[in-house]
Amino acid sequence: MSWRRTLTIFFSTTTRPSNSIRKSLAPPLSFSSHFSSATSPFPSGLDPTKPSDKPRVVVLGSGWAGCRLMKGIDTSIYDVVCISPRNHMVFTPLLASTCVGTLEFRSVAEPIARIQPAISHAPGSFFFLARCRGIDTEKHVVHCETVIDGSGSNIPEPWPFQVSYDKLVIASGAEASTFGIDGVKEHAIFLREVSHAQEIRRKLLLNLMLSDVPGISEEEKSRLLHCVVVGGGPTGVEFSGELSDFIIRDVHERYSHVKDYINVTLIEASEILSSFDVRLRQYAINQLTKSGVRLVRGVVKHVQPQKLILNDGTEVPYGLLVWSTGVGPSHFISSLQFPKSPGGRIGVDEWLRVPSEQDVFSIGDCSGFLESTGKHVLPALAQVAERQGKYLASLLNQIGKSGGGHADSARDVEFGNPFVYKHLGSMATVGSYKALVDLRQSKEAKGLSLAGFISWFIWRSAYLTRVVSWRNRFYVAINWATTFVFGRDISRI
Amino acid sequence: MSWRRTLTIFFSTTTRPSNSIRKSLAPPLSFSSHFSSATSPFPSGLDPTKPSDKPRVVVLGSGWAGCRLMKGIDTSIYDVVCISPRNHMVFTPLLASTCVGTLEFRSVAEPIARIQPAISHAPGSFFFLARCRGIDTEKHVVHCETVIDGSGSNIPEPWPFQVSYDKLVIASGAEASTFGIDGVKEHAIFLREVSHAQEIRRKLLLNLMLSDVPGISEEEKSRLLHCVVVGGGPTGVEFSGELSDFIIRDVHERYSHVKDYINVTLIEASEILSSFDVRLRQYAINQLTKSGVRLVRGVVKHVQPQKLILNDGTEVPYGLLVWSTGVGPSHFISSLQFPKSPGGRIGVDEWLRVPSEQDVFSIGDCSGFLESTGKHVLPALAQVAERQGKYLASLLNQIGKSGGGHADSARDVEFGNPFVYKHLGSMATVGSYKALVDLRQSKEAKGLSLAGFISWFIWRSAYLTRVVSWRNRFYVAINWATTFVFGRDISRI
Repeated sequence: MSWRRTLTIFFSTTTRPSNSIRKSLAPPLSFSSHFSSATSPFPSGLDPTKPSDKPRVVVLGSGWAGCRLMKGIDTSIYDVVCISPRNHMVFTPLLASTCVGTLEFRSVAEPIARIQPAISHAPGSFFFLARCRGIDTEKHVVHCETVIDGSGSNIPEPWPFQVSYDKLVIASGAEASTFGIDGVKEHAIFLREVSHAQEIRRKLLLNLMLSDVPGISEEEKSRLLHCVVVGGGPTGVEFSGELSDFIIRDVHERYSHVKDYINVTLIEASEILSSFDVRLRQYAINQLTKSGVRLVRGVVKHVQPQKLILNDGTEVPYGLLVWSTGVGPSHFISSLQFPKSPGGRIGVDEWLRVPSEQDVFSIGDCSGFLESTGKHVLPALAQVAERQGKYLASLLNQIGKSGGGHADSARDVEFGNPFVYKHLGSMATVGSYKALVDLRQSKEAKGLSLAGFISWFIWRSAYLTRVVSWRNRFYVAINWATTFVFGRDISRI
Repeated sequence: MSWRRTLTIFFSTTTRPSNSIRKSLAPPLSFSSHFSSATSPFPSGLDPTKPSDKPRVVVLGSGWAGCRLMKGIDTSIYDVVCISPRNHMVFTPLLASTCVGTLEFRSVAEPIARIQPAISHAPGSFFFLARCRGIDTEKHVVHCETVIDGSGSNIPEPWPFQVSYDKLVIASGAEASTFGIDGVKEHAIFLREVSHAQEIRRKLLLNLMLSDVPGISEEEKSRLLHCVVVGGGPTGVEFSGELSDFIIRDVHERYSHVKDYINVTLIEASEILSSFDVRLRQYAINQLTKSGVRLVRGVVKHVQPQKLILNDGTEVPYGLLVWSTGVGPSHFISSLQFPKSPGGRIGVDEWLRVPSEQDVFSIGDCSGFLESTGKHVLPALAQVAERQGKYLASLLNQIGKSGGGHADSARDVEFGNPFVYKHLGSMATVGSYKALVDLRQSKEAKGLSLAGFISWFIWRSAYLTRVVSWRNRFYVAINWATTFVFGRDISRI
C-alpha cells in the first residue's frame, strides 16, 4: 500500500489525529487465525475447529427457518456462520404491501446482524455473502462462491472458498414454480424478494406515467395498465387486494387522467385460497370482485413479452405480470445426493436430521419428512419454517451442552423429543381493510374462523407483533399511519 | 379488446359488481380533446391552446427551480405541463445522508403531484415522463421523447411527441463536471439523484460484506474499503462527514471484523469549502481529520476501474469513488441556439426571459445573466433556483392576470420589478453532530458565522422546515430519531 505513504496529507497543520484514530487507520498486523493461511491449497476458507475452539454451526440461507434458528442459537456454546446471497431476512407476509407503497421496503427487511448480533463481532462468527455450490459431508465442508449481483467495474470477480462445519443446517428455501411454462421466467415477476417488490413498484409507476403521454394508442394504454396476477393463493390474493386499494385510493387521485384504463385480473386454475373453507373463500371472492378485481379461471399455456395465452386460446395482453403459483425445490436442493421426501425436498427424520449423514440438518421449505417417518410433508409456510428453526436451535443448544457440539461427536447424545407441528391457523388480507382469519387446525376441525374488518385488525396486529425488531415494528406502524393520512408515495426512485 | 369479452369471469355467482365498479372497468369512450387526433400528422401531442382555453405553461425539469415555479403557478389562470425524466424533486441538501442510511431515500424525494396537485387531475395539466429534444420557438412547440429507463420486455420503445406552449420555462438543470478526465463517467458515481445515492449505498454494503469473505487478499480488502471522494465543496465534505459517522458508529458495531480496513480520503485540487471563510474552513478541516477523513491535495489525471491516478503520478486504489466537483452546462442546454451567458448557460435578462425569443424563460442551474445585463452569473445553488422559481411564478401569474397568458400576447404587458438575488447564507455539515453556518452575504460582509453543535442544530432545523411536504418533514424527523436510537439500517436491498 505504497500509495498511502506517498499521498501528501494537507490541511492538517493545526491538528494531530488522536491516537485512537491513527490506530484505526493503520493496516492490521495479523490475519484472523480462523482463516487458512495464504500458503494453504486453494480455495481458502474456514478450517475445521480445534477441540479447544467453540464448535461451528454453519447455516445455509437467511429466510424464516435459518434466521429463527440463528436467533435461538446459544452463542456462548457455538460460533455461527451464515452463508446466504442476501444479508437480511424478508418478512414475507408483508411483502405484497410494499409493491404499492403501503409499506416501505426497508420496513419488511431485517438485517441478519440485528437478528444474531454475534455474526458482526464474535471472532469466530461470520456472515458470508455467497451461495453454497456443494457439500462434502465426509470431510464436513461446504464449497461456496461469493454472490456479486451489482454491476460495475470496481467490483471483483466472484471467487470460491470453503467452510468447515461441525453442524450444518440447510435452510436455503425453495424456488418459485413455473411448471415449465414458456416465458414465465423471462417476462413475469415473482414476489419472493424485496428486489421483486421494487421491480413491481417501478414498473407499475412507469406504466401509469407512460400511459399519460401523448401518442400512445388506446389499446396500448389498456395493455400497459392491465395488471395480471397468476395464482390465487394467499400471495396472489393479497397482492391483488393491495393493488385494488392502491387504484381506488391513490390512482384515482394521483393519476386521474388514466384511472379508467387500469384493471386487475387474477387468474387461477382451480379455486382461490383453496386452504380456506368455502364460506371464507366466498367472502374473499365477493370482496375482490367488489373492489374491481376480475377473477378468471384459466390455465396459462404460454407467456409472451406483452401477452399471455390461456389453454383455451384466449390472449390476455398485460403491462405487469406477477406470478405466484407456489414453490418447488431449487436447483441446488435437487443437485444434492441426499434421500428426498415426496416432492423432491431434502428428506429429514423427526429430529429434522438428514439421517444418512452425521451432523447435517435441514429446515424450512427445502426439507420434508421422509416417507419412512410416516408423516406428511409440511406445507411451505412461514410458520412451519419458523417453528422448525426454533426447535432446531434448542436441539443444537442441548447437543452442545451435552458435549456433542463438535463434528462427529454427537453419536451417543440423547436427542429428546422429536419435532411436532401444530398449525396455528391461516390469515389472508383481501384489501379494503378486510381479511380472512381461520384459527382452526384444519378445514374440518372446530374453532374460530371469521372474515371482515375485525379479522383485518387481528391480521395487522398479529403481524405487527411478529415483525422481528422493534425498529421495524415501529416503521411498519408509522408506514401504515402515513399511508392512511397522506396516501401512498408515488415517487419512482 | 376482444380478450376481455372472451375471458370467462368465474366465482361471481353470488355478487354482481356494483355499477360504479362496472363503469370503471369499461373502456373509456372518448379521448381527451387536448390530444391531437389519430389522423393528425406524426408525431402526436398537445395542440396549441385556443383563446377560450386556459393558457399553458410548459416546464422543462423538476428540480428546485421548476418545482418551486409549479408550486407558485396560479392554476386558475394556467394549465401546467411538466416534462422531466423523473416524477419527483430531490431534496438535494439531504441526499448525502441517504447514502449511508441516516435518512431513507423516499424521505428526500417529493413527488411533483404533491407539489402541484393540478398535474394529477386538472383536465389540461399533465406530467410527461420525457426529455425535451428540441425547441421550435417560432411555432411555440417543444419536441420530446419518452424516457424509459427500466429494462423488461413488456415496456414499449421510447416514442416522440410534441407539446405546444404559451409560456415555456427551461429549468432542466446542469450536469456534473468531469473536466474531460478519462474514466470518470465510467467508474465514478456522482451524487445528484436518488439513484446515485442508492448505487453508493449498495456498493458500500457490498464491499463491506465481500471484504469479510475468506480468500480475499489484504491488499484487495484495503482497496474495496477505501472510499475516495473527489471534490471538496459542500457535497463532497458532507458526504465524507456522513461516511465517517457511519464508520465510527455503524461499521465498528456491525462489521467489526473489517473495521480496521475502511478509510475515507477526500481529494481536492485547491481549498475545501472555498466559499466559507478561513476560520470556518479550518474548523471543518480539523473536524474531518479528527473523524479519520484523510484530506489530500491533488488533481486527478485519470480514473481506472480500481484506481485513480493523480497528476504527480500517485496511484490511489479505491473501492468506491464519488465525484462531486461541481456542475456545468448539459448537452441539451449546449445544443440550444440561444445566446449564452458566461459559462455556457442560457442567457437571460433581469426578468429571467430569453430576450431574443417570445414567451421563453429560463431559471435554475441551466441559466445565467447575459453579459449585457452587467450582472454576475449566480452560483449553482438550491437557494438561487428556488428564489428564481418563486419570482417567475408570480411574474407569470401577473402576466396571466393582465391578459398576456397566451402565446405572443404579452408584448405590451408591464413586467414590473426585475429579479434580485439576496444571498441568505451557506451551511455545510461536517459529521459528528457538527456544522458550519455562515449567514453573511459574502465572505467580507458582517454578520453571523459559526461552527459546532449549535450550527449543526440550526442546520438540521432549517432543513427540516424547508422539506416540501409535511409527510417528508415527518419522515426526516422519524429517520433521524431512529438512526439515533437504533443505528443505520444495513440491509442491502
